[in-house]
Amino acid sequence: MRCDRVWRGARLATLDPAREGLGIVEDGLIAAAGGRILYADDAADAPAFEATETIDCEGRWITPGLIDCHTHLVFGGDRAHEFELRLAGASYEEIARRGGGIVSTMKATRTATEAELVASALRRLDALIAEGVTTIEVKSGYGLSREAELKSLRAARALSEARPVSVATTFLGAHALPPEANGDKDAYIGQVIEMLPEIAQAGLADAVDAFCEGIAFSPEQVARVFTAAKALGLPVKLHADQLSNLHGAKLAADFGALSADHLEHTDEEGTAAMSAAGTVAVLLPGAFYFIRETKLPPVDLFRRHGTKIALATDCNPGTSPLTSLLLTMNMGATLFRLTVEECIAGVTREPARALGRLADVGTLEAGKSCDLAIWDIERPAELVYRMGFNPLHARVWRGK
Amino acid sequence: MRCDRVWRGARLATLDPAREGLGIVEDGLIAAAGGRILYADDAADAPAFEATETIDCEGRWITPGLIDCHTHLVFGGDRAHEFELRLAGASYEEIARRGGGIVSTMKATRTATEAELVASALRRLDALIAEGVTTIEVKSGYGLSREAELKSLRAARALSEARPVSVATTFLGAHALPPEANGDKDAYIGQVIEMLPEIAQAGLADAVDAFCEGIAFSPEQVARVFTAAKALGLPVKLHADQLSNLHGAKLAADFGALSADHLEHTDEEGTAAMSAAGTVAVLLPGAFYFIRETKLPPVDLFRRHGTKIALATDCNPGTSPLTSLLLTMNMGATLFRLTVEECIAGVTREPARALGRLADVGTLEAGKSCDLAIWDIERPAELVYRMGFNPLHARVWRGK
Ligand SMILES: [Zn+2]
Ligand SMILES: [Zn+2]
Repeated sequence: MRCDRVWRGARLATLDPAREGLGIVEDGLIAAAGGRILYADDAADAPAFEATETIDCEGRWITPGLIDCHTHLVFGGDRAHEFELRLAGASYEEIARRGGGIVSTMKATRTATEAELVASALRRLDALIAEGVTTIEVKSGYGLSREAELKSLRAARALSEARPVSVATTFLGAHALPPEANGDKDAYIGQVIEMLPEIAQAGLADAVDAFCEGIAFSPEQVARVFTAAKALGLPVKLHADQLSNLHGAKLAADFGALSADHLEHTDEEGTAAMSAAGTVAVLLPGAFYFIRETKLPPVDLFRRHGTKIALATDCNPGTSPLTSLLLTMNMGATLFRLTVEECIAGVTREPARALGRLADVGTLEAGKSCDLAIWDIERPAELVYRMGFNPLHARVWRGK
Repeated sequence: MRCDRVWRGARLATLDPAREGLGIVEDGLIAAAGGRILYADDAADAPAFEATETIDCEGRWITPGLIDCHTHLVFGGDRAHEFELRLAGASYEEIARRGGGIVSTMKATRTATEAELVASALRRLDALIAEGVTTIEVKSGYGLSREAELKSLRAARALSEARPVSVATTFLGAHALPPEANGDKDAYIGQVIEMLPEIAQAGLADAVDAFCEGIAFSPEQVARVFTAAKALGLPVKLHADQLSNLHGAKLAADFGALSADHLEHTDEEGTAAMSAAGTVAVLLPGAFYFIRETKLPPVDLFRRHGTKIALATDCNPGTSPLTSLLLTMNMGATLFRLTVEECIAGVTREPARALGRLADVGTLEAGKSCDLAIWDIERPAELVYRMGFNPLHARVWRGK
């Protein structure tokens, strides 16, 4: 059978849900044609492929290309100085007075040109790509005005033209209240809803997200956004139950959300609703670590209810300036006590599910996009165990 | 004035102790000749250098090359599988029964050839070097026999021939009790002391370390090793007060130790003694994080007593598989609440002091080795604030 490329001599962690655990194939072979996987299974059972190029993996491991399903990669400025002031003892009030906090990122994002937003996001994207990321979700949400949100989404879309990576964009207009709203959250939610048709028509967003929290928006306000999004055919997801239990997980599940994210305060009712709705639990240990949270997400509840668990960087300037999915896995294991299998599924198969893209990416199965990460390791656990070490040997996106 | 190289257009964090804070020079210039710094100060005040090569840093920041003053970089095997078993719920007893724990590393280290030890350590060293490390300390301590300890120290020395990096070696025979000692710690300490003259004569160790802890060696046993080391002219350092307060900090200070390391349980008496003796407090947040320690080292005591604070990776397979000093800084800030200045001094000037090499490295001052890290950042705080992001632009070791 003719094909473009064959990788042989590889150990595969297919993540194929029809197989047990990581779906391991000890003497594996992958064949690709037209950017798609033709075959990913035992070398012994493979048809005779005539490949333009054959790569001997010399016993290396291949996993699906990694997927970061929750990032705020596009923003202006950074918050390093705020971090410094906080360590030096400044209070949140002082920092706000000095122009810190989310408003500072909003201002820098509004001021930046689209090209500037792309350039700064590319540095962060390159760090993720260097660790084998092949699909990334990018949210808006630091513009908080029609113009700046559109600019942010265009910048997110432009990332996929600048690098060999698949980008899923998410409109997060309901992230925070901009100062010009003068505290009127309901009015601002009305504006967010007004932005939606234009964004949908321009194809700028693959999903719609909101931040449900006392310091952000109420469940009722989120429901208004979600109702409008669903009417336009856009799937939804939610920043839920991070700092308190507003029953965001349940709300997300009620709207058939792709995912509910953070979830430190989620209860059993929310977990059960997520499981029934197929809403993925996206855990963000980088934010947990960075803000020194102590309330752990209810991992045992997720396990008991069969809720799918993904892990993501939550890369953002305020609470998780993190650009490593390998470190995210280590944090998932060390801080949340996820198993090695849960961590690896959490950055491959489950985030694919959380993006509604499991038919296309996230596992090594025939028919899917040939997105691979090839690792210089002896066993998959090494991907989770180390800190600050990148054993990526090669990365393949759409067969190349 | 003739010189080999000039770096101009740079912002310097000199760490010069005669200057305030990070010792910042906004429009800085560095000139080097014969691998040494000729000048590192204001460009406006610089003599007219005739350089073979001039590098325009375009506003980038230069810090001293980073120094990792506490690593166990040389060992055989890894402990990823043990990590996996523990996450899957295995007890320490089960893991020990399955051949895990420090004994598994000892066996793998004894089995490995010197070349194999060098090769596996080089992967870890390369990760550190990629972040601007120019000096590293490497301990033995997984051989636990004369032959395997000598092999480990030779492997550590060989690292400096394989890469452009300065290596300080430390003999840590008193790390753990090997199984063949049958529980007789005093007899094993006798063997360690017997190894010392050969190691000293061969110039294989720059210092001698021990692990003072209930699960390792008593203060009395450590004192025997230290007395023998000092008699041979070797400086000492100590793994002290990590899991309990055996007054290891005080013990180290009484022997004029270069550093006492870990220190979670150190009290005010130990702190004061360290300060008086000039013993540096080397904090190891990677181990704190990885073993999910909750007892914080007494940073405020160190500040109050003027004890110098360094940060290091403690890179080791059992409790800190960490090969990033940038992440170590972030952990120092996030977990231990060190300031940005303390973190940056903690991986430059203070570890130089902890290695007894402050006259040669650790700051940007005329006469020192021209070891530089050049960073694509807008402010030094970015080095501490981010997680899993490497903004190193270039690295210079001995002027090149
Ligand atoms: Zn987020
Ligand atoms: Zn150590």
